[in-house]
Amino acid sequence: MRYLLTNDDGIYARGLSALYSELSKDADCLIVAPEVERSAVGHAITLNRPLMVRRTKKDGNFLGYAVSGTPADCVKIGIKELSEKPVDLVVSGINIGANVGINVIYSGTVSAATEGAILGVPSMAISLGTLRNADYTFAAHFARTMARFIMKYFEKKSVALNINVPALPVQDIKGYAVTRQGKARLIESFDRRVDPRERLYYWLAGETQLSEQEEPDSDGSALSRGMISITPIYHDMTRYDALDGLKALLSKETSLLPVAKCDFQD
Amino acid sequence: MRYLLTNDDGIYARGLSALYSELSKDADCLIVAPEVERSAVGHAITLNRPLMVRRTKKDGNFLGYAVSGTPADCVKIGIKELSEKPVDLVVSGINIGANVGINVIYSGTVSAATEGAILGVPSMAISLGTLRNADYTFAAHFARTMARFIMKYFEKKSVALNINVPALPVQDIKGYAVTRQGKARLIESFDRRVDPRERLYYWLAGETQLSEQEEPDSDGSALSRGMISITPIYHDMTRYDALDGLKALLSKETSLLPVAKCDFQD
Repeated sequence: MRYLLTNDDGIYARGLSALYSELSKDADCLIVAPEVERSAVGHAITLNRPLMVRRTKKDGNFLGYAVSGTPADCVKIGIKELSEKPVDLVVSGINIGANVGINVIYSGTVSAATEGAILGVPSMAISLGTLRNADYTFAAHFARTMARFIMKYFEKKSVALNINVPALPVQDIKGYAVTRQGKARLIESFDRRVDPRERLYYWLAGETQLSEQEEPDSDGSALSRGMISITPIYHDMTRYDALDGLKALLSKETSLLPVAKCDFQD
Repeated sequence: MRYLLTNDDGIYARGLSALYSELSKDADCLIVAPEVERSAVGHAITLNRPLMVRRTKKDGNFLGYAVSGTPADCVKIGIKELSEKPVDLVVSGINIGANVGINVIYSGTVSAATEGAILGVPSMAISLGTLRNADYTFAAHFARTMARFIMKYFEKKSVALNINVPALPVQDIKGYAVTRQGKARLIESFDRRVDPRERLYYWLAGETQLSEQEEPDSDGSALSRGMISITPIYHDMTRYDALDGLKALLSKETSLLPVAKCDFQD
């Protein structure tokens, strides 16, 4: 079995190392990860520059491939080029900090799992709900469990799971919940400064806020209640519930539109 | 009326200029755009570096703000900080090259519209289906039409439309179609090279291929048949159709999972 491991905190991150230690018990794991932290890169891929690929070592042994790109780049090049055998599962993480609600679309960690599924390889992203004093032990153990679950039911299937583990002692974890991406959003603010050459610049600050509405089945809500959230995700951004309304409104606007409605529309 | 204009081809791109010329007829347009091309950045935002913001001029007049970030950054900072009055509409484009199928999730152009909607501002992305000899005249005209349409029906609503215009003479455009994001995907390949210092690097190459299945209601299919595609999009990546199946499978695995199912799950 070949697992491809990546992350967005960089190839030397502790969360990736914890993942490797656990998953190596079941599979031949290959690390292909960004050479430096690439947080909040969303689903970026690198087209305008080449991807530099470097073999890295740790304590004298081969650690993995460090890539001058994003997590999505790492998954593409890992599956298509660097792995000498077919990849059975992509695992991305363990991210330091939750990826719930709106953060999911900014997350490099999650985009690696989405990319795996796009390429037809079952995938998961796993994140730990804390920004400091991270203890990856249980999250790594849970990653191994979920890897086995995915291999049992979704081998060769295009599935992606986004998993968030609360940063709690294991006895305080309430259980798991299958969730949907919630409406928790980033409340951003810009910190305006002037550099020594009197040029203007800004730091984007902000924190995730749970939605005001009660959302019992959302990822963020489950996590904040001490549960592990498991959300099936994919890359289709169509707003299906808006299709019919939009068709109806556009149909009313024959005078506004310079072109006609096409005949396969009813 | 205040429109915020951005793109991912950079503040000096011709497509943005064409958009500005048309939309200025109806609204007070403010350009906030990346200082350089930022294609395929997906929904990246800039957290680890400051955003440099520079006032740019063209022919001696104020052109807009050039930002050292991504399209999503430009929308955030434009709405929250740089526009001296509330933004009524975000328009991103005109992109050179279609944004259909899988490309939608890699697209900086589209992510700007998604970001606008996240911030509660109606938004649209508009792209022209060609990579060379782009004539933006009709696409810009159509952008103006759609801006008026959105302002009529969706003022202050969180809506995002992804629009693709075929690169055809106007009399050959068949009409418009309300579509969904299709399954057209990028078929990628990596071009392996060695640099003068004997280090390995790769160029990501690839082209979008329409799905083999017939997809009459997809964006890519409409575009290839000479229609303008209009797809409502949003940022929820939940795979709703997989929720129940996943719950059932996990419920079977009580011995595998180290934690229990939570009680709000049925």
